[in-house]
Amino acid sequence: MKAGVFDSGIGGLTVVKSLLGHKLFDEIIYYGDTARVPYGSKDKNTIIRYSLEVSEFFKNFDIDILIVACNTVSAYALEELRDSINIPVVGVIEAGVLSLENQIKNKKSNILILGTKATINSKKYKLALEEKQYQNITSIATGLFVPIVEEGLEKTQILDKTLEYYFKDLNNIDAVILGCTHFPLIENKISSFLNNAKTIHSGEAIVEFLEKNYNCHQKHTETKLNFFASENPDSLKKVAVKWLGIKNLII
Amino acid sequence: MKAGVFDSGIGGLTVVKSLLGHKLFDEIIYYGDTARVPYGSKDKNTIIRYSLEVSEFFKNFDIDILIVACNTVSAYALEELRDSINIPVVGVIEAGVLSLENQIKNKKSNILILGTKATINSKKYKLALEEKQYQNITSIATGLFVPIVEEGLEKTQILDKTLEYYFKDLNNIDAVILGCTHFPLIENKISSFLNNAKTIHSGEAIVEFLEKNYNCHQKHTETKLNFFASENPDSLKKVAVKWLGIKNLII
Repeated sequence: MKAGVFDSGIGGLTVVKSLLGHKLFDEIIYYGDTARVPYGSKDKNTIIRYSLEVSEFFKNFDIDILIVACNTVSAYALEELRDSINIPVVGVIEAGVLSLENQIKNKKSNILILGTKATINSKKYKLALEEKQYQNITSIATGLFVPIVEEGLEKTQILDKTLEYYFKDLNNIDAVILGCTHFPLIENKISSFLNNAKTIHSGEAIVEFLEKNYNCHQKHTETKLNFFASENPDSLKKVAVKWLGIKNLII
Repeated sequence: MKAGVFDSGIGGLTVVKSLLGHKLFDEIIYYGDTARVPYGSKDKNTIIRYSLEVSEFFKNFDIDILIVACNTVSAYALEELRDSINIPVVGVIEAGVLSLENQIKNKKSNILILGTKATINSKKYKLALEEKQYQNITSIATGLFVPIVEEGLEKTQILDKTLEYYFKDLNNIDAVILGCTHFPLIENKISSFLNNAKTIHSGEAIVEFLEKNYNCHQKHTETKLNFFASENPDSLKKVAVKWLGIKNLII
């Protein structure tokens, strides 16, 4: 089975890591729209326009399923992508909500949703959780997390102060949805600041979702990887080698 | 006289503010490539491609001069822009260097250059200053400043810690080039952290440059303003009203 993975940039590699860890596919085609990243601060029409252009790219490959690793695209362009391409299209928001449901049974638990400005403004996570009867939901657009990760500042006091700033009014969070593919890279910092709240990771959530809804149980000993980017693909491949711990990627 | 002002996003409005303050033009056409901002983390070929697309936009207007407010575009695409459009094209780097020369006569002064990753990697400021015989130059890519400004976090401890992080190894800086149009919005914080070092502001530098090289001395009582953006022009206009203190802008 051959999957396409679409992200606005490099962040979706955290989803690829989960897919590899669970050996779900024998081939993955990754596309990062690095020339136009970030999508998270752009408006709905632009996000849809860019997403539809990327779906045209995926039509060059005979993929069986398209996985939208980007939370912002999942929030705004999933229906448009489904209309444009004749294969299943899976987004990280529906997957994240399912994963939370599996882990958090008490509907009065305090749930925290983190994401880009666009993802939070879409209210997609919030509405889906309310539909599942969760009652105590807080949403925060944590716009500085992505640049902090991209600048490699995860271990500095800048991140500590940023966590303090965004989380100063929170109490007793039980679970936090990491609603952006960059956030798993500071998962430990976020979780420990919130007294070890449970974290919902888009990559692991997608795996759960695929196993449940698409019967992706067959394990593949090897996954062929193909990386594409709208700008500087070599740089994306270098990050892939680092994050995924791959040794033999041909660049 | 009618000027085009090109920036990758909203930051170039700080340059427009200086142009208005000095009443240099009777009309300004501003274009922000908000759908593809930021340019500062993108590579050379992409920056050139985007810039040439924007120069086509300006051909719709009968402008007399094109002012490139974006330091990143000034660093990478100025020659290409000059080849593509048949009017003078002025960049903020040459202007910043001239302004520094006017203010700092001692060639042994400690000069600090701040900018995006792309601007710093281009070494354009550094080489131009070396050509002018300045001997003590330090360059730092301060990638977190733009998102801090865009998130409205200028007054938080996050900025304090970020200044500490970037500037921890610096001593006795005499002048600092604010090599990105967002940086004037934290000019006071930067300057006071560096013991009131002199600052070179792209907008004021462009005014000096135009007055010297293009004989822009005629003062206009009113400047007609036109704002365009590749995404969400209304949002750009709202920022313009706020930053420029305009009262009667028709949106």
